[in-house]
Amino acid sequence: MPTPQMKVSIKAIEFYLPSKIENGNDLKRDNADWRIDDIENKTGIFNRHIAEPEQTATDMAVVASEQLFKSGVRKEDIDFLILVTQSPDYLLPSSACILQDRLRLRESTIAFDINLGCSGFIYGLAVGSSLIETGLAKKGLLVCADTYTKYIDKHDRTCRPIFSDGASTTLLASSDQQAMGSFELGTDGSGFNNIILPSSGTRECDKGSRKKDFFMDGAKVFMFTMAMVPKCLNSIIKKSDKTLDDIYMFFFHQASKTVMDSIIRRLKLPKEKVFINYDKIGNTVSASIPIALKNASDEKRLQKGAQIMLVGFGVGCSWGGCILKWDGET
Amino acid sequence: MPTPQMKVSIKAIEFYLPSKIENGNDLKRDNADWRIDDIENKTGIFNRHIAEPEQTATDMAVVASEQLFKSGVRKEDIDFLILVTQSPDYLLPSSACILQDRLRLRESTIAFDINLGCSGFIYGLAVGSSLIETGLAKKGLLVCADTYTKYIDKHDRTCRPIFSDGASTTLLASSDQQAMGSFELGTDGSGFNNIILPSSGTRECDKGSRKKDFFMDGAKVFMFTMAMVPKCLNSIIKKSDKTLDDIYMFFFHQASKTVMDSIIRRLKLPKEKVFINYDKIGNTVSASIPIALKNASDEKRLQKGAQIMLVGFGVGCSWGGCILKWDGET
Repeated sequence: MPTPQMKVSIKAIEFYLPSKIENGNDLKRDNADWRIDDIENKTGIFNRHIAEPEQTATDMAVVASEQLFKSGVRKEDIDFLILVTQSPDYLLPSSACILQDRLRLRESTIAFDINLGCSGFIYGLAVGSSLIETGLAKKGLLVCADTYTKYIDKHDRTCRPIFSDGASTTLLASSDQQAMGSFELGTDGSGFNNIILPSSGTRECDKGSRKKDFFMDGAKVFMFTMAMVPKCLNSIIKKSDKTLDDIYMFFFHQASKTVMDSIIRRLKLPKEKVFINYDKIGNTVSASIPIALKNASDEKRLQKGAQIMLVGFGVGCSWGGCILKWDGET
Repeated sequence: MPTPQMKVSIKAIEFYLPSKIENGNDLKRDNADWRIDDIENKTGIFNRHIAEPEQTATDMAVVASEQLFKSGVRKEDIDFLILVTQSPDYLLPSSACILQDRLRLRESTIAFDINLGCSGFIYGLAVGSSLIETGLAKKGLLVCADTYTKYIDKHDRTCRPIFSDGASTTLLASSDQQAMGSFELGTDGSGFNNIILPSSGTRECDKGSRKKDFFMDGAKVFMFTMAMVPKCLNSIIKKSDKTLDDIYMFFFHQASKTVMDSIIRRLKLPKEKVFINYDKIGNTVSASIPIALKNASDEKRLQKGAQIMLVGFGVGCSWGGCILKWDGET
């Protein structure tokens, strides 16, 4: 049964990646025993962007968002600012409130953080679109920004070669077409400790000073991904009035080459329909899908009105996907 | 102009407060020079609930939510779990995912954290109601849980006499009446450092070990509150088709006696129409309004169908208010 679509669309996307880039040589310098070729063959990632020590997710979000305003979007039209992040400036206040001030948005801005990782853009789309669909807002910013590299030890061979810092800003607005949806969103918290920053909140707060103790169980996350992504994708199709052939292009969370190749193989997707940019920028967590969309748009690989599918998955474990009609620049 | 109302209502609320209670004697024991009578005259708060060292916001949320399920709500009917917290177990994963697992909710649960403080229940209501109104969900849990006392130094005379730990779970569901709204939501991030936990996120992460460095500028927060709450309240009335006289009862965030008395005086509200419970339980952050609603319901002070107004305000600075038609137990 088709689920309701919403009269909302993505109007524009901008992003920012820190200028500091790390490659295989940097990994080798800190880890003489790593076989960099083997790592790069597996991850497919050759560059990662690294935030400066003093540069936080909100700093990056300001740069990305100001680019959007330079392109003609009016600050006085922004009704909400949803910041998806797991690298807030502080546990409190909400970093979205700090952004509201730094971007000089109106006091009537609905501002809050959503804490989610690689599935976060899809959840933010669902929440932001719902605020517009119900009439609580007409236009808003969905910002995704993370600095996972601050959490990762330089000798962590599973995580350091993959994760990259970055921020995206997506302009959502009401549309005359039902351009947004269907959505499929889900959670399996039994895998909560497959990707975790243990000494970061209140659970282990008496452990003393914070450590760069980000941990990912690569094998378990891979199994979760291969179990959930095909299910999620099929469920979205079932909820919509579309077939897989109707999808003009697929935008998966840019996890790594191993994950992406396995998804393509398992789902028998035509390679040219699956957008890839992890090789050049790494895994930027919740910003990875909007950055991929913007890249595809800049490369003239998206047509206005094209049906595209987005699927995000990861930390939580949490997943989300949707079909939408592309309404941004082409 | 009346803004859209939503066919959503609050069906039930449960809450949990830690059994450990602190009163004036405890403050005096740690602070021989404090004049407890003066403090209590100002705050109006005589008891505060304190989470155990090992007890986190999700632990409290589990207890509150299981009470709801014991009362007959079916787990398999829950479509979303929104956790409003600024005391997550970890910066990642999202504590809502952990709750999904601990409560044994379905994998199709839409689970995420919203990071907001004393205004958070109203934002959660707006977001949760929107998910229902658009058809993305039929029923969901809005959980508010915080353990601010873990952040507060025992010698902090501004904060320790006020803040209390607690968790609430609110069941939202579709309704045949337009019971939810109008909403008024806003943000003034220029006051972001009026209530702040500096060494908690990525901004000051190189400062070394975490401290109990929660800070509140009481005077500035009071000025913000007295400037924004009347504006917010008048704006809600303007957006609705109601007058102040139509409001059966007001539920403000239970900040403290000073704040509450000033609001009542400034707005010339009839005292008997303003629900108060801060004296007995303290300021429980985002859980304070739902706990007040449940208390009022248990005390038979709420009638089904009564128009009530909720207003939350604080850290961010962020504020939110709404009118809704009471649909819970009475």
